[in-house]
Amino acid sequence: MNSPHRVVIIGGGFGGLYAARALKHAPVQVTLLDRRNFHLFQPLLYQVATGTLAPGDIASPIRLVLKRQVNARVLLAEVIDFDIEARRVLLRDGEKIPYDTLVLAAGSETNYFGHDPWRPLAPGLKTVEDATTMRSRILMAFESAEREADPAKVASWLTFVIVGAGPTGVELAGALAEVARKTLRDGFRHIQPANARILLIDAVDHALPTYPLSLSIKAEEALKRLGIILRTKCRVTDVRPGEVVIEEGGKTETIPTQSVLWTSGVRASPLGEALARASGAAIDKGGRVLVESDLSLPGHPEVFVIGDLANPSAKEQQNIPGVAPAAMQEGQYVADLIENRLKGKTVGPFRYQNHGSLATIGRNKAVADLGWLKFDGFPAWLAWAFVHIFKLLEFENRFLVMIQWAWNYLNWRRTDLLITTPRTPAAPTRENPPHA
Amino acid sequence: MNSPHRVVIIGGGFGGLYAARALKHAPVQVTLLDRRNFHLFQPLLYQVATGTLAPGDIASPIRLVLKRQVNARVLLAEVIDFDIEARRVLLRDGEKIPYDTLVLAAGSETNYFGHDPWRPLAPGLKTVEDATTMRSRILMAFESAEREADPAKVASWLTFVIVGAGPTGVELAGALAEVARKTLRDGFRHIQPANARILLIDAVDHALPTYPLSLSIKAEEALKRLGIILRTKCRVTDVRPGEVVIEEGGKTETIPTQSVLWTSGVRASPLGEALARASGAAIDKGGRVLVESDLSLPGHPEVFVIGDLANPSAKEQQNIPGVAPAAMQEGQYVADLIENRLKGKTVGPFRYQNHGSLATIGRNKAVADLGWLKFDGFPAWLAWAFVHIFKLLEFENRFLVMIQWAWNYLNWRRTDLLITTPRTPAAPTRENPPHA
Repeated sequence: MNSPHRVVIIGGGFGGLYAARALKHAPVQVTLLDRRNFHLFQPLLYQVATGTLAPGDIASPIRLVLKRQVNARVLLAEVIDFDIEARRVLLRDGEKIPYDTLVLAAGSETNYFGHDPWRPLAPGLKTVEDATTMRSRILMAFESAEREADPAKVASWLTFVIVGAGPTGVELAGALAEVARKTLRDGFRHIQPANARILLIDAVDHALPTYPLSLSIKAEEALKRLGIILRTKCRVTDVRPGEVVIEEGGKTETIPTQSVLWTSGVRASPLGEALARASGAAIDKGGRVLVESDLSLPGHPEVFVIGDLANPSAKEQQNIPGVAPAAMQEGQYVADLIENRLKGKTVGPFRYQNHGSLATIGRNKAVADLGWLKFDGFPAWLAWAFVHIFKLLEFENRFLVMIQWAWNYLNWRRTDLLITTPRTPAAPTRENPPHA
Repeated sequence: MNSPHRVVIIGGGFGGLYAARALKHAPVQVTLLDRRNFHLFQPLLYQVATGTLAPGDIASPIRLVLKRQVNARVLLAEVIDFDIEARRVLLRDGEKIPYDTLVLAAGSETNYFGHDPWRPLAPGLKTVEDATTMRSRILMAFESAEREADPAKVASWLTFVIVGAGPTGVELAGALAEVARKTLRDGFRHIQPANARILLIDAVDHALPTYPLSLSIKAEEALKRLGIILRTKCRVTDVRPGEVVIEEGGKTETIPTQSVLWTSGVRASPLGEALARASGAAIDKGGRVLVESDLSLPGHPEVFVIGDLANPSAKEQQNIPGVAPAAMQEGQYVADLIENRLKGKTVGPFRYQNHGSLATIGRNKAVADLGWLKFDGFPAWLAWAFVHIFKLLEFENRFLVMIQWAWNYLNWRRTDLLITTPRTPAAPTRENPPHA
């Protein structure tokens, strides 16, 4: 018997995990590599950052998600480079994993647009550690304000600047407003958490710039009702300890704040650049790899790039958004293509199906754009809740998260309001064992 | 109107929080100081270390627990010293908090018995970070074994050495055995998690040395049925990267392991020593402050020490165990004493009421010693579950944790199996602001 066709998938996000699962009945041996041991439901990270959900609620161990898929194995490993000619990926510990087909689904990271010194001052929201860092920063700001006598310093601790008015920024602003106005109410003696100033800043013309204008305006009204100060057409020009500098209509302003929260953009994983270097492929200015209309690397039909890391060069595909549904569809498409190719069949180019966009603005409010239907308010919020709960249930039976949401909803309660600090030593790993 | 009597309580553990709450109707102004923003239910930390509960499940924000107690305020602050004559405590940021009565309830920390280099190699189990570090170590050991080809190294990754066969060590060993044999089953392709070797090592004669011998023997039988290798009368003489050295009956043995988990002992918070220095009081060899039979400092009736940090000098009290019920009783006693003293009344010396001890050994099994009744097996496990759930519900309505337990119980499921690493920058604080 021949050894089975080896499919190596890099990344256990929505793209990689969907590709792996869709290969369940294919005559292949799947190896899924990820640096982390869990799949993360990134669209709900802002709920961890604001204490509604705990990290474990939105993360599923990849190994357990795939435990019944006998043709799949999961390795916790960091990929650092590619040998395209020899068809191998190189791991940080020196091991080389051979493949017959490679699927790169390594995702994206927070983009500071060339301002790396801003990173420690303005935490992003892409990883579990980002979310718990943001949560600690937010809670610590209220704690510090409570102990501060100087009114100017109190105001600076109670000023929160969220940079980026896309869905993540809007959702974070709404949740943060609720924490300040409801969850922490009555908890303090010296300050009123409800007096927190929440600014949402973006250079674009309207919040949710990728949404239809009518929904953006609805979202802006909902933000205003929550007391959030939205400043569009406004650029952040500097982030410094204790303040952020913005520029609006040619005028510069310095806002004293201890809490800058960064949801402004993403850039592709550096593995895109590594793949481009190894294969001669091109990358766009966001670091995404330019791929064919079937998501394969030009000249390398055995290598695919999917998800946030892929930029399909076909003109009609260039507006695929960096969202979970697109990554899922791409994962499923590539799995289907691989299975058909092994049977000697071909499939047509990838076509993104836009099933719509949803964003919440606090409790009960959301905007929904299904293309053929736009709506907002409570019906949109229900649609949002339904879709997200349904999707979260996909990998694990998480009926408890549903109950938790319902409970928190009824009680304005938050689940996880711990200020944790990374004071503990890192765990030893095979790549970095304790005896190293 | 006179300003109210100022009671400053240091520590939001079981002792301090009970003292604060018991002063609810007293004519005093309570200030509770803690370095952390949450009260931690330490007896269940081992469930976080093994993924059954998430950190947020066993931690309650102190501020929200006390939010309806109008005579109490909570400050997130680190106490570093005392000025006993001026009646002030000194905070790390230089602020001084004056008191009329002081209650020191700063608890204990992991004791490496003079072997501080062992600390990074053998994580303890006293803080949330300890528990998530231990969880990451345990899960990372299985992940590393899965990627290892050398059988000797696989065996070393799959060997777990728990040092200390008291309740925490016994409970941790039982939970770890279940993770290996049940939760992780079918998740790996190269290794069998069920082959993990779990050693429980202690210098004492029997597991649970503070329990009646008959229950210790029952516990040892239960451990054996779970496949745990118990080695009593066995001392750890060295912990080195990749191995632990033990000595039993004069013979030395080196055990290759990447995972040494330390539950062997505690020593009092260094604040005990600081108080002794400031007041001339004596401390015992465990760092506990020797106090009068009313828990006050000799010569300083306005200063009390309670919980793990107190050693009441009265002979009949010297065996108060370092457990939550003792700290709670002491907190309540001191609050009662303070309230009575303000009325010009006196109260008798503190008397510890031992309501019994309970320890679980995995699912369904436990031992219970109520003094007048000793029992084990499933009834003891039910008693354990009942007491712990009841106590956990005390500060917050945690009916979800109950449902979660029931659900996990039925499914052998774990809630939170994330390997997290402390890679993120620390949050700024008032003591360490971002502009410092």
